[in-house]
Amino acid sequence: MAAQNQNKVSLPVIKRLPKYYRYISDMHNNGIVKVSSSELARMMGTTASQVRQDFNCFGGFGQQGIGYHVDVLLSEISKLLFSEKNLNAVLIGTGRLGRAISGYLSAEARGYHLMAAFDKSPDEIGRELQCGVMVQDVAELAAFCAAHHPDVAVLCIPRAGAKAVAPTLVEAGVKGYWNFSHYDLSVDYEGITVENVHLGDSLMSLGYRVRND
Amino acid sequence: MAAQNQNKVSLPVIKRLPKYYRYISDMHNNGIVKVSSSELARMMGTTASQVRQDFNCFGGFGQQGIGYHVDVLLSEISKLLFSEKNLNAVLIGTGRLGRAISGYLSAEARGYHLMAAFDKSPDEIGRELQCGVMVQDVAELAAFCAAHHPDVAVLCIPRAGAKAVAPTLVEAGVKGYWNFSHYDLSVDYEGITVENVHLGDSLMSLGYRVRND
Repeated sequence: MAAQNQNKVSLPVIKRLPKYYRYISDMHNNGIVKVSSSELARMMGTTASQVRQDFNCFGGFGQQGIGYHVDVLLSEISKLLFSEKNLNAVLIGTGRLGRAISGYLSAEARGYHLMAAFDKSPDEIGRELQCGVMVQDVAELAAFCAAHHPDVAVLCIPRAGAKAVAPTLVEAGVKGYWNFSHYDLSVDYEGITVENVHLGDSLMSLGYRVRND
Repeated sequence: MAAQNQNKVSLPVIKRLPKYYRYISDMHNNGIVKVSSSELARMMGTTASQVRQDFNCFGGFGQQGIGYHVDVLLSEISKLLFSEKNLNAVLIGTGRLGRAISGYLSAEARGYHLMAAFDKSPDEIGRELQCGVMVQDVAELAAFCAAHHPDVAVLCIPRAGAKAVAPTLVEAGVKGYWNFSHYDLSVDYEGITVENVHLGDSLMSLGYRVRND
């Protein structure tokens, strides 16, 4: 059921899946057995019609009118978001942001395994992250990727550094990028998946909205 | 020119402003004097028509056909994103993520001034952040807000903590929220501006896309 329409699923729908997952996990943990699209919509801050449309992208997850079974929703959305095999990730850049981000990759169950971390600073190389991963010299990155084939690279480095490591990663077959840098890989490379997190942009647009709302 | 249509500007346009600002700053730093909407579109990964539509929300920034003056664009977009008076911000939560985030609020010119930081952990209280701000007990938050009227609160705490401090902040008149928690303030409160950054969601949707793209 889950696989049939995946190629047609739009990015906004995919981006809402984790939020559904969080709300539905909470309901499941609170012993709630059934939920209607309008109850879900109220929690999610959207409309019942949007919820039904979103779920229809993946086969529907149950029938309108009688509500959704929370355990079915949780199981189906978990299957979409995670797989039996975690995605192997490498972290590039272990400064303050990289170290904070490493917690998301290791400690919490989001479907990833942090294989290795890299930095160019002699102060960082050889240090251990809180998750137990040792920071390696970024000069070793190409050899590591050739040997271990990571699925995802997490870029917590400035734009110039990101631009410099991108060819190594793309040539090594790394398909996914969680990109905190301002270098937009998707302009220069095809066939990769990039999730950009521009924290500075987020802060600047908040400023505009606070001043003008 | 900049102010006339602000109330009509849609959120997607506002969210693109910082990206325009970054690209146009780069061009200005590189000595580029004029740019066409199609050149800007190529850099931004969008269309020339989109660029012109976006700029028309703010009065146009110049005329089609002859291209845009980079210094005019930079000046007008800077006026939109920043003001002479920085926004005063308080940081709630000085764990790994909060400390990483504090750099965005203090060191870089994004229109903010980090007034104070708060945590509930005795290990954090009394410590100094890298930017020189001392961490205070979150029990002091209400008194601080009453005395100093921050414009923006940055929430780097789990959902329960965010839900617990929200009434204090909203009652104190804090209008803007840079929210890294999973508590969605905009469902419970009106008249505030919330910019949510859900890093875990971003990582989960990347996983879906890497597996299915």
